[in-house]
Amino acid sequence: MSRTAPLIIDALQIPTPERRWFEEWKAGGVGCVHATMAIWEGAEETFSYIGRYKRVLEENADLVAQAATADDIERIAASGRTAVVFGFQNTAPVEHDIELFRSFRDLGVRIMQLTYNLQNYIGCGYWEANDSGISSRFGRKAIEEMNRLGILIDLSHCGERTTLEAIELSARPVSITHANPREYVGSPTFGAGRLKTTEAIKALARRGGVLGLSPNRNMIKHGTDTTLEQFCDMVAWVVERIGIDAVGIGTDYCAGHPPTVRNWWRYARWSRETAPAAQMKIAPHEGWQAWFRSPADFPNITAGLLRHGFAEAEVAMLMGGNFLRLFRESFGDAAAAPRPAAAAS
Amino acid sequence: MSRTAPLIIDALQIPTPERRWFEEWKAGGVGCVHATMAIWEGAEETFSYIGRYKRVLEENADLVAQAATADDIERIAASGRTAVVFGFQNTAPVEHDIELFRSFRDLGVRIMQLTYNLQNYIGCGYWEANDSGISSRFGRKAIEEMNRLGILIDLSHCGERTTLEAIELSARPVSITHANPREYVGSPTFGAGRLKTTEAIKALARRGGVLGLSPNRNMIKHGTDTTLEQFCDMVAWVVERIGIDAVGIGTDYCAGHPPTVRNWWRYARWSRETAPAAQMKIAPHEGWQAWFRSPADFPNITAGLLRHGFAEAEVAMLMGGNFLRLFRESFGDAAAAPRPAAAAS
Repeated sequence: MSRTAPLIIDALQIPTPERRWFEEWKAGGVGCVHATMAIWEGAEETFSYIGRYKRVLEENADLVAQAATADDIERIAASGRTAVVFGFQNTAPVEHDIELFRSFRDLGVRIMQLTYNLQNYIGCGYWEANDSGISSRFGRKAIEEMNRLGILIDLSHCGERTTLEAIELSARPVSITHANPREYVGSPTFGAGRLKTTEAIKALARRGGVLGLSPNRNMIKHGTDTTLEQFCDMVAWVVERIGIDAVGIGTDYCAGHPPTVRNWWRYARWSRETAPAAQMKIAPHEGWQAWFRSPADFPNITAGLLRHGFAEAEVAMLMGGNFLRLFRESFGDAAAAPRPAAAAS
Repeated sequence: MSRTAPLIIDALQIPTPERRWFEEWKAGGVGCVHATMAIWEGAEETFSYIGRYKRVLEENADLVAQAATADDIERIAASGRTAVVFGFQNTAPVEHDIELFRSFRDLGVRIMQLTYNLQNYIGCGYWEANDSGISSRFGRKAIEEMNRLGILIDLSHCGERTTLEAIELSARPVSITHANPREYVGSPTFGAGRLKTTEAIKALARRGGVLGLSPNRNMIKHGTDTTLEQFCDMVAWVVERIGIDAVGIGTDYCAGHPPTVRNWWRYARWSRETAPAAQMKIAPHEGWQAWFRSPADFPNITAGLLRHGFAEAEVAMLMGGNFLRLFRESFGDAAAAPRPAAAAS
């Protein structure tokens, strides 16, 4: 890595707590990863998993450290390690309990996606046929509480109405850490519903939010055939519409999870169905493009964006600067939030 | 009690597991009570509470026994005791797990209200400003599963749209175990939303369901000033509209719970608010009319309905016959449901 390599932030990964993924981050010069701690799990399972994840991070302190603030991220990245920001892809861990936001926040959970794919106490995921938005009493209270505590709201898997209403209701900027633009991509494997409308990403940017774009085969225009140049073209398309300061990268890279776990993400226990066989066959390192086989290939994206014609300062914003700015505004002490104990060693 | 006294079924009570309430049932000649096992509690707490409740029933086997079928109810009532049918006032105990319906059913939980006052994974309660109905994937699966397993759906606290859609979606008759008619009562303490529209109760009856009417001060026309004659007038008003075979009694009698618990029913942990002071001041035996100070006064209702002009056979239907018929159709072996072990001793 050259001295001028930009800070790289991957705004969404779901890595099992294993050293081999931390080594990939090191190889790719990744300064920060927002790592998923829960999808459908309730409070008890999630508190347990966070404990386990922290232990594994400490066992690999030469490569990684937990970050709770933007300053933590900068310091950890400057030391040549990867800062790990904890987050949820669902508010299931909070169950129906307004006080749990605080306990998770104090353990370092700084980002929460309001819903995974389905309706919950707060709103609706993209996979519901009907999205009733943020219409519940608890939903509105939850957004207020996340704003108050400095928990960044993520809307990546939310339905359109839930996305638009959450952007409107939140007093602080929100994020879409990992989703591509529907108008540009069309209907990929995950279906168009998983992608974000131009209206939504424009509203996000107007309120100071950041959109993380993903090379994930299931939500990119040409699937695994997508070239790096085509990926960069999508980045440019989005930048033209919502501005250079509202775009980042969120790979949605899921490392180490067997097909049974990916089936769990789809169907959990709310159904007895199983995922389509084709989807189940995706092994952890299959299905990604040659220019992004793993996070070790992040420098390819940096180089691709420079080749595409973005200026060096612009590439720095896209690769991590914008998310760092959003994290600084979101995790900050506006609510006098104490830093989690033992985070950021 | 005379030999010809009708079988009395109270379609909804929330009694703490204590002998003193069982003695009231005995004094009132109550043959069956549908008793609430959960309001906001999740799976673990509810499984524990069911175990505790069964133990207490067994310790008071001279007065009570658990019932899992209509035959159980008839046999237990004929022995001079009260049959206790387990139910939930929310699907919170099922969490987001389709398999949990079976485990609760096999422990004797025969009735489940789809929602308490708020939105959950299945639908919306009456206290939401916006009721999105049964629009979630899990909601539809849950109704199918309850139909399959022989778990009677209860819609008492559900919002209007959730109520109407559940009546339509359910392949088997459903119940409203404890709610009064909105058109007749107007806007009582609980607010008009807690009451049922004429459209909803007519749809319920058309599909073979039964509505349990309540003397609860918070949802009756003249509050604690309501006379027995006025209560019977409400019964007659409803019978005229939905038929003599679709009406029963569900008192909503909550015995033994301190104000802190009633506050929990209202706000649980989804809010930091507390119930209005006035509501908190209602002690267990306060606030009920002189003709129904407790379930020991059930014979007053029987006598009142006879005085009002209902025939003896009609009174028998209203006091328990209709709910017994619905329970027989609903708990039955249509789905080859095994009887819970150890129920109905």
